[in-house]
Amino acid sequence: MIDVLFNHIQDKVSLTAADKETIQSFFTPKKLRKRQYLLQEGQVCKHLSFVAKGLLRTYNVDEKGLEHMSVFGWEGWWISDFNSFLSGDPAIFNIDAIEDSELLLISYDDYENLTLRVPIMDRYFRMLYQNSIVTKERRLMSSITHTAQEKYLKLAESNPEILERIPQNMIASYLGIAPETLSRIRKNLVAKK
Amino acid sequence: MIDVLFNHIQDKVSLTAADKETIQSFFTPKKLRKRQYLLQEGQVCKHLSFVAKGLLRTYNVDEKGLEHMSVFGWEGWWISDFNSFLSGDPAIFNIDAIEDSELLLISYDDYENLTLRVPIMDRYFRMLYQNSIVTKERRLMSSITHTAQEKYLKLAESNPEILERIPQNMIASYLGIAPETLSRIRKNLVAKK
Repeated sequence: MIDVLFNHIQDKVSLTAADKETIQSFFTPKKLRKRQYLLQEGQVCKHLSFVAKGLLRTYNVDEKGLEHMSVFGWEGWWISDFNSFLSGDPAIFNIDAIEDSELLLISYDDYENLTLRVPIMDRYFRMLYQNSIVTKERRLMSSITHTAQEKYLKLAESNPEILERIPQNMIASYLGIAPETLSRIRKNLVAKK
Repeated sequence: MIDVLFNHIQDKVSLTAADKETIQSFFTPKKLRKRQYLLQEGQVCKHLSFVAKGLLRTYNVDEKGLEHMSVFGWEGWWISDFNSFLSGDPAIFNIDAIEDSELLLISYDDYENLTLRVPIMDRYFRMLYQNSIVTKERRLMSSITHTAQEKYLKLAESNPEILERIPQNMIASYLGIAPETLSRIRKNLVAKK
């Protein structure tokens, strides 16, 4: 399982055998069954979790009981309520497993210690976060400027295989549209083909 | 001007005199007059710019000619079309000055070289991007779950002094609402006091 993490890190920076040993010592493996929670709103998010296998979602629930999907995480993604993880404030997100999943967890103190012990990890996370910012900027502008159909098309283009693994009602919530609207969009797209 | 940057960096990490000398050698100062462009949509964003003084905005223009505000940057902020800066793709954002501004610019190659020459800068940018991700996540969830009035209140609470410096029509665009809606919200809030 740790090799999935090493591969992900080595896509961005080089690791020595000693680095790997140190990195491994900071992580704890955890398995989640489908529908099991990793984090509930109001708890403090004590770990940054690397997804070695499976699929999870981050979402919150508004006062009317409606779910608002924030992020999906699959193999090679990091998942957390990042604000809660960094600040120690209560999480505003829930995280649960859409599929049986295998994770590698690191606590906040260990995350800070890891970057001191293996400084190249600062570089890895710096690059990881750069990409995350670009993705979030695109999604934010898309939420303001694009129609639901355009948003769906962009998602389908960038992550076709993941889209197959996520239930339709969660995709609708991610796009901020009603499930019926998504269903209509999908029918229109099929009709056009 | 460079001291504003050093102070900002030293809020997060320690710098030696030699680090400072190296850092300074990588940056070029630039002054912008009010309304002057730093970047236009379609150009490649060749620099990451640190705002030492003034106020700028990042925005794009849709097919109907409507401006959509993305980010405001003032003293102590970094501003760019980050995707264009990292990838070399054409920028989707425009950046211009709301006030006379003083910037420190670094090119992509120099940014990469700087982190190799002064590795603690990886740590600085890692921390900077962490905060940026938290801000963007909050704004994204806010855009999905909050009313215009709630969004305005959050903005007014977190950045009261900056809000005074930004024209109302740009704030309305940032919130994704019509200027008339913002005007009505402000009147309601004053009436409630």
